[in-house]
Amino acid sequence: MIDFQTSPDQYRHWKLQVEGETAWLRLDVSETGTLFDGYELKLNSYDLGVDIELNDAIQRLRFEHPEVKSVVVCSAKEKIFCAGANIRMLGGATHGHKVNFCKFTNETRNSIEDATDCSSQKYLCAINGTAAGGGYELALATDYIVLADDGSSTVSLPEVPLLAVLPGTGGLTRVVDKRKVRRDLADVFCSTEEGVRGQRAVDWRLVDECVPTSRFLDRVRERAAEMAAESDRPSDATGVKLSPLQRQIAEDTVRYSHVTVELNRQKRIATVTLRAPTDAAPGDIAGMEAQGDRFWALALCRELDDAILHLRTNEATLGTIVFRSEGDPETVVGYDRFLHDHADHWLAREIMLYWKRTLKRVDLTSRTLYTQVTPRSCFAGFLAELVFAADRSYMLDGVFEDEDPDAPPATLTLTASSFGPLPMSNGLTRLQTRFLGEPDSVEKAQALVGKPLDAQAALDAGLVTYAPDDIDWEDEVRLALEERASFSPDSLTGMEANLRFAGPETMETKIFGRLTAWQNWIFQRPNAVAERGALRLYGTGERAEFNHERV
Amino acid sequence: MIDFQTSPDQYRHWKLQVEGETAWLRLDVSETGTLFDGYELKLNSYDLGVDIELNDAIQRLRFEHPEVKSVVVCSAKEKIFCAGANIRMLGGATHGHKVNFCKFTNETRNSIEDATDCSSQKYLCAINGTAAGGGYELALATDYIVLADDGSSTVSLPEVPLLAVLPGTGGLTRVVDKRKVRRDLADVFCSTEEGVRGQRAVDWRLVDECVPTSRFLDRVRERAAEMAAESDRPSDATGVKLSPLQRQIAEDTVRYSHVTVELNRQKRIATVTLRAPTDAAPGDIAGMEAQGDRFWALALCRELDDAILHLRTNEATLGTIVFRSEGDPETVVGYDRFLHDHADHWLAREIMLYWKRTLKRVDLTSRTLYTQVTPRSCFAGFLAELVFAADRSYMLDGVFEDEDPDAPPATLTLTASSFGPLPMSNGLTRLQTRFLGEPDSVEKAQALVGKPLDAQAALDAGLVTYAPDDIDWEDEVRLALEERASFSPDSLTGMEANLRFAGPETMETKIFGRLTAWQNWIFQRPNAVAERGALRLYGTGERAEFNHERV
Repeated sequence: MIDFQTSPDQYRHWKLQVEGETAWLRLDVSETGTLFDGYELKLNSYDLGVDIELNDAIQRLRFEHPEVKSVVVCSAKEKIFCAGANIRMLGGATHGHKVNFCKFTNETRNSIEDATDCSSQKYLCAINGTAAGGGYELALATDYIVLADDGSSTVSLPEVPLLAVLPGTGGLTRVVDKRKVRRDLADVFCSTEEGVRGQRAVDWRLVDECVPTSRFLDRVRERAAEMAAESDRPSDATGVKLSPLQRQIAEDTVRYSHVTVELNRQKRIATVTLRAPTDAAPGDIAGMEAQGDRFWALALCRELDDAILHLRTNEATLGTIVFRSEGDPETVVGYDRFLHDHADHWLAREIMLYWKRTLKRVDLTSRTLYTQVTPRSCFAGFLAELVFAADRSYMLDGVFEDEDPDAPPATLTLTASSFGPLPMSNGLTRLQTRFLGEPDSVEKAQALVGKPLDAQAALDAGLVTYAPDDIDWEDEVRLALEERASFSPDSLTGMEANLRFAGPETMETKIFGRLTAWQNWIFQRPNAVAERGALRLYGTGERAEFNHERV
Repeated sequence: MIDFQTSPDQYRHWKLQVEGETAWLRLDVSETGTLFDGYELKLNSYDLGVDIELNDAIQRLRFEHPEVKSVVVCSAKEKIFCAGANIRMLGGATHGHKVNFCKFTNETRNSIEDATDCSSQKYLCAINGTAAGGGYELALATDYIVLADDGSSTVSLPEVPLLAVLPGTGGLTRVVDKRKVRRDLADVFCSTEEGVRGQRAVDWRLVDECVPTSRFLDRVRERAAEMAAESDRPSDATGVKLSPLQRQIAEDTVRYSHVTVELNRQKRIATVTLRAPTDAAPGDIAGMEAQGDRFWALALCRELDDAILHLRTNEATLGTIVFRSEGDPETVVGYDRFLHDHADHWLAREIMLYWKRTLKRVDLTSRTLYTQVTPRSCFAGFLAELVFAADRSYMLDGVFEDEDPDAPPATLTLTASSFGPLPMSNGLTRLQTRFLGEPDSVEKAQALVGKPLDAQAALDAGLVTYAPDDIDWEDEVRLALEERASFSPDSLTGMEANLRFAGPETMETKIFGRLTAWQNWIFQRPNAVAERGALRLYGTGERAEFNHERV
């Protein structure tokens, strides 16, 4: 099992140091600290384990260090910044692991951009030595790249010439779409093993600045201070310590404080149930701060995030995730309102941004997502987004047969959360995406904010897919799940990746759609992964054998 | 060898009939008229041969029938509109053929939208019977879909449930992005084998109208007349007959009137040389009309179009295409100016639109594209776009050693053609895409319009990648070609597909980037194409065996 939970005292590869307004994230990969056997992490190359630490550090900087306004990513090793993803690891990994590895590293790079853009914790990268492949892609995720001008520090994307695969962590996209490198120069750059250094790297827009070794560290400090000066993060706030998750993993369940995951391997379904809190939201900021990481909206998000990563990585055959919820929707609405009322408070902002990222992770999960809205569920506020993130939603009309016919039916409650702060990767809200063909329906939905909608009202507003009554519910839901489980997982992955993101494309959707899809294709092709393919032969001194047909 | 040239008298699958302002394209597939052995084209299913005829008909309607203002696509068979791409053909085809087949059919669907949007020849689709998979995707490419309300006519995309692949001709993208079907309904639709019919198809926006059989034909005629009434095509113009291309295919060359393709199989390079005409452009429209399909700008475009299709399909191992040109750039500029001066004339417009489509076909060709600009080449006006479409361009600074040192050097001449009428699939011009990071350079280039630029001027303006002099030329060009030929073709395909289309995404780029990449991945996956995969077992009555891991 791969565990996505860690903490700085357990880090083997990163050194996190906070110096006033600036934090330093130094990469110092332990060669032997690998996630699997069969490779060594030489030259600051990384595997998923290294990236799990990076993801943890980025999260902690946001929550535990409100005072940190800029973050320098650099290397603790001489003459090497980072050699990218470890090739022997990739060569030996299953197709599924490669794909999951790339997805998680991409999400982590995106979270760096999200910290810079939305949390005002601005990342820069100081490259002293070689930044190759994933190493340069890590730099590309930051907002400013300083390269040492020492005749040997270079940036490169040598995947195509060296490994017969693509730079898989957004490199191609960020080179032409973020840094807007001219496409023919990008072509030269991406087919040049040895990379580009010095002034040429600046001229081609591959880095922002090239600084002689003697002034390098001073300039990095200066730039970090400049970037910190533009931040709106508070200097005097107290951070929230992220303590270890309460999690119990058993044969067929994963239990957290507010989330339970039930694993039905026979039917290939994971049911994720989210629970509302019993206590109402605190009355003021001090109340939230006092609760720290036990504050329900934060605790739940951490648990959902971990559950999704766990299912993706450790439970590959569970093709469908069913979201359910339990609890009082009024209480959820209370927490939701609290976050909106305090949207200008750094911690409330962080929590909402975390929900944004976690819901994007849900969108990008290559599993079928069905949401079931039943009596005593609490899909309200930000939790209602799990209804709109789903490929399909089922809402019970009325109550179940064995219940008091006058018991309260299932409801769905919209709040401001569905109309702005939680956009998808395409830059639109889930409701905007849903109603591309009928934008009026977004306005109509806005008029329903705060009202608990029963199944018929939700169906009329186009908010759920189906609203069967008690008589039809069981068959309809069961058949839908069985049918889905009978389809080819690959075609479902492709279908969902195409249907979920209508509307505009962004750098993020390009990375997860176009770039990832091509990379996954290449990861299946003999030229890369066969016995005599480039990925397998790397490091052996032997030359890969290619079928030269262009497809 | 697959030949993309045909003409209505050779059609085996389509019936083209012009009735005043409306043309009828009736699909009547000959079961035995297949491109290869091993399958029969039952139920109006199609293979590449059927689509080659469709592409030809669309082209001829534009050029030969200026008076046609609307086109009805329908079936000549009872109870079946079209069952989509033939599955047994796909099951038996190589990966390369599948991919090329999908690319060409996609381009043909796009040309239907281009005719509707840009040439004012508006397509509608009359579905009387079953429109499944590629059949419905053909309908989706038209601007208006009328479905017979007879209790049995349906539209469907059954690929995922039935075949474990995606609808590969833009279906998923057009459902959510063109017709803006709500994503959960799209999910239901795309996983329902039997499809959707009647009013539900209208309610879900899958079709525009559902009409009882008794009124069906009348309504289609009426709608065709309405759409024709909105067209700006001339009623009294004379069409240009597209006569058979002059083409000689030999072992290592393909020769046309104005294009020569040299095939170097050992080095895996195809050199495509385009020649300027010796005669100046005609003085007026009558002169162009008198030349008909011999008018150089049209003749050259047809030849380039055919050459690209030939290389893609029949010469898969030639991984690099080198574009060269020969002739007087002034003459090319004259033709270019002629087309701009008469941009409001239907034929001049058609020719420019054809260049737009052909240059897009070049952009979308999964081969490395290098353009060489040398003395006596004529990259001017619309031909200069081949310099900007290239992954890299090489322009000789000065003249070759064995030439008179005072001979005219290589030049590049910009015209209005590079600033609007020939956008890429992303909706931007090639120069806008090239200069995303420095939009000023587009304005600077505009100031250079009409001036023959030598290598240094072109390099300074950022219009070419390299400008080696005579001493370096041979080595530099040779090494670049050898290096490229040594790389994995698959990684180059992926790299080029990601670097060529920076900037905004459109439905077209989504189809060729996201959708195609996922489909190509699925086409490699055992769940679809292994011995016991769904694509191979289709029609045998046996059940496919799936690996249920989600990737």
